[in-house]
Amino acid sequence: MSLIRKIIKPRTARDEYFFVELKKIIGFIPKNLHYYKKAFIHRSIQEVDKESGLPQNYERLEFLGDAMLSAVIAAYLFEEVPSGDEGYLTQMRSKIVSREHLNELGRDLDLLKFVKSTVAKSKFGENIHGNVFEALIGAIYLDRGYNFCEKFIQKRVIIPYVDVPKLEGKITSYKSLFIEWCQKQKKDFQYEVYEDTGKDTVKHFSVKLFLDGKIISKGRATSKKKAEETASKRAYFAFQNEITNN
Amino acid sequence: MSLIRKIIKPRTARDEYFFVELKKIIGFIPKNLHYYKKAFIHRSIQEVDKESGLPQNYERLEFLGDAMLSAVIAAYLFEEVPSGDEGYLTQMRSKIVSREHLNELGRDLDLLKFVKSTVAKSKFGENIHGNVFEALIGAIYLDRGYNFCEKFIQKRVIIPYVDVPKLEGKITSYKSLFIEWCQKQKKDFQYEVYEDTGKDTVKHFSVKLFLDGKIISKGRATSKKKAEETASKRAYFAFQNEITNN
Repeated sequence: MSLIRKIIKPRTARDEYFFVELKKIIGFIPKNLHYYKKAFIHRSIQEVDKESGLPQNYERLEFLGDAMLSAVIAAYLFEEVPSGDEGYLTQMRSKIVSREHLNELGRDLDLLKFVKSTVAKSKFGENIHGNVFEALIGAIYLDRGYNFCEKFIQKRVIIPYVDVPKLEGKITSYKSLFIEWCQKQKKDFQYEVYEDTGKDTVKHFSVKLFLDGKIISKGRATSKKKAEETASKRAYFAFQNEITNN
Repeated sequence: MSLIRKIIKPRTARDEYFFVELKKIIGFIPKNLHYYKKAFIHRSIQEVDKESGLPQNYERLEFLGDAMLSAVIAAYLFEEVPSGDEGYLTQMRSKIVSREHLNELGRDLDLLKFVKSTVAKSKFGENIHGNVFEALIGAIYLDRGYNFCEKFIQKRVIIPYVDVPKLEGKITSYKSLFIEWCQKQKKDFQYEVYEDTGKDTVKHFSVKLFLDGKIISKGRATSKKKAEETASKRAYFAFQNEITNN
């Protein structure tokens, strides 16, 4: 009850759209939309808080989100890799929170659609994707605290993207691992790739992976290669015992 | 009730001592002493976990504690300095979590007394103080979670040491500020300094600051200069309205 009462209801149609879309992305109910709106205001807008006269844009939230992301990933790696020493953990974390990786995360969630700016979106560099992704984590911290940041990062970073053996370089491609296994076992396999952008603003591809004529996994991503890798990884985990004992 | 049941009671006299001293330092009841013990095991001991065969020392906890400290300080600065931009916040945080500052924090809490090592304590460099301070934060995270890290850092770092105007270089010395004010106001002041090591293993000094013959504040630290500065800062805040309106 008290939780529901505290939620600030969206007022306008535009807020309503933002609320619904944001909820899908973060995976829980945002309490105070104000924080999240700020996470998508580019400095070009030159928005200023009426009371304090302070600039309102996502840059300070980026700082906060970056700190929360680093802490959550540190705690995850600490638990996940008990054999890794301090240097190893530091190195793994750098790979996960690399600029390139954050840009990919922001792009895949299509966060750019929320950005308010006077600059044409096509003119932004790649980094805007990662910057607003970090700012979004900062907004989650202000709205719901550390534990919700952890939940969000678990759902949107760790589960879909963090793969310690791959980051360690032990597995560079699940696709080649899978194909190798099929060939040894004399099994038929087929990757069926098709464009599947749907309502996304960025082009997407889907893959169906067949083993002996049956679909065993699917993948969807912004490139054919990534979609194939996702499907292969899922197949790898589904058949892990058979593949690793082979 | 359930909280009390979960606490693992100390078993030996040595554990009892550790439990009591630790509780004073962290300011709450540690649930699982195991985590905290590890925060003080130096690698020279070459302790190994019987089940996993993994080395047991504080180095991994340092990584975890460093991440939590950075996140808590980021959140503090974000709230405390609404006018600071991303670059400013990053710079302030670096000052607060500098190696030198962390060493001072660990030294003032006399954490070295808990360290288990085959190396003579006199042979350690300065950094051991900061390292075990970070490891202690890591242990707090594992034992009680992020919110207790925040509590501890608030109590042991932010309240006693973090002073944004001073970090900003706007105030370099509270002592000179205080003296200047006394001279303008034609008030008598006196710093009474004496050694006050007590049960500490490190030498400490205490200061009583008198204004027109009356004690107005006290300070205690590991150097005369620091103890005077602490007493001056307390006096400054006590007389802030009078000093800043002057």
